[in-house]
Amino acid sequence: MECVLCNPSNEKIIKQNNLFRVILVDEIPGFIRIILNKHIGEFSDLNFDEYNKITKEIYRIEKIMRKTLNPDKINIASLGNYVPHLHIHIIPRYKDDSWFPDSIWSEKHREYKYQTTQKQLDELLEGIKNG
Amino acid sequence: MECVLCNPSNEKIIKQNNLFRVILVDEIPGFIRIILNKHIGEFSDLNFDEYNKITKEIYRIEKIMRKTLNPDKINIASLGNYVPHLHIHIIPRYKDDSWFPDSIWSEKHREYKYQTTQKQLDELLEGIKNG
Repeated sequence: MECVLCNPSNEKIIKQNNLFRVILVDEIPGFIRIILNKHIGEFSDLNFDEYNKITKEIYRIEKIMRKTLNPDKINIASLGNYVPHLHIHIIPRYKDDSWFPDSIWSEKHREYKYQTTQKQLDELLEGIKNG
Repeated sequence: MECVLCNPSNEKIIKQNNLFRVILVDEIPGFIRIILNKHIGEFSDLNFDEYNKITKEIYRIEKIMRKTLNPDKINIASLGNYVPHLHIHIIPRYKDDSWFPDSIWSEKHREYKYQTTQKQLDELLEGIKNG
């Protein structure tokens, strides 16, 4: 079966390099995903130097996300049960969002209208791009 | 309100140092959690040196978990929506476990009996302890 992350379509790529790409996910305003270019399943399939490049990017994006979106919490996860191609979710969470305090993979508790502005999103993307 | 990770009880501590402790979580055989000693909410509340100590430990534990438990997938997540005190879940997943392919925070799909042996668990804990 074709891997959807090896054969992506319509990704909103913010930045990319030899190792990974960073995309904006539509589902939640400011939801960021780091996707490895090569088809590997786990962090430890990377050598330690590659791994450190990814974790450094996670740290950097988290900082920018806090500064620009000021969410109540940030959720970071590498699951890959559906698509075993390493990718990392970086998700801004708000205390009255649809799932809070549960994960976004849990059942929805309520409807929620994000207050995130285009200016905030632009600043987030600009910050990620220029790192 | 008291933080349950600042005031823990009955934690099965595998190792600990000045920065964090690593515990065995009962819910799933081999479920490991890294808990920061200090009460901070996000990775970027750590300085970059401290952050790297944590990510190095995640990488190390993931390697040991693959070697000893040989799970179908490993899920790694830092959520903290209920308890905003930085902690990282490292979870062995199996293709017919109760939630697969969904997250363990999703609805259960089925009952599942883990085949993990005591020998495997001992080797996992030994590997984590001796790092």
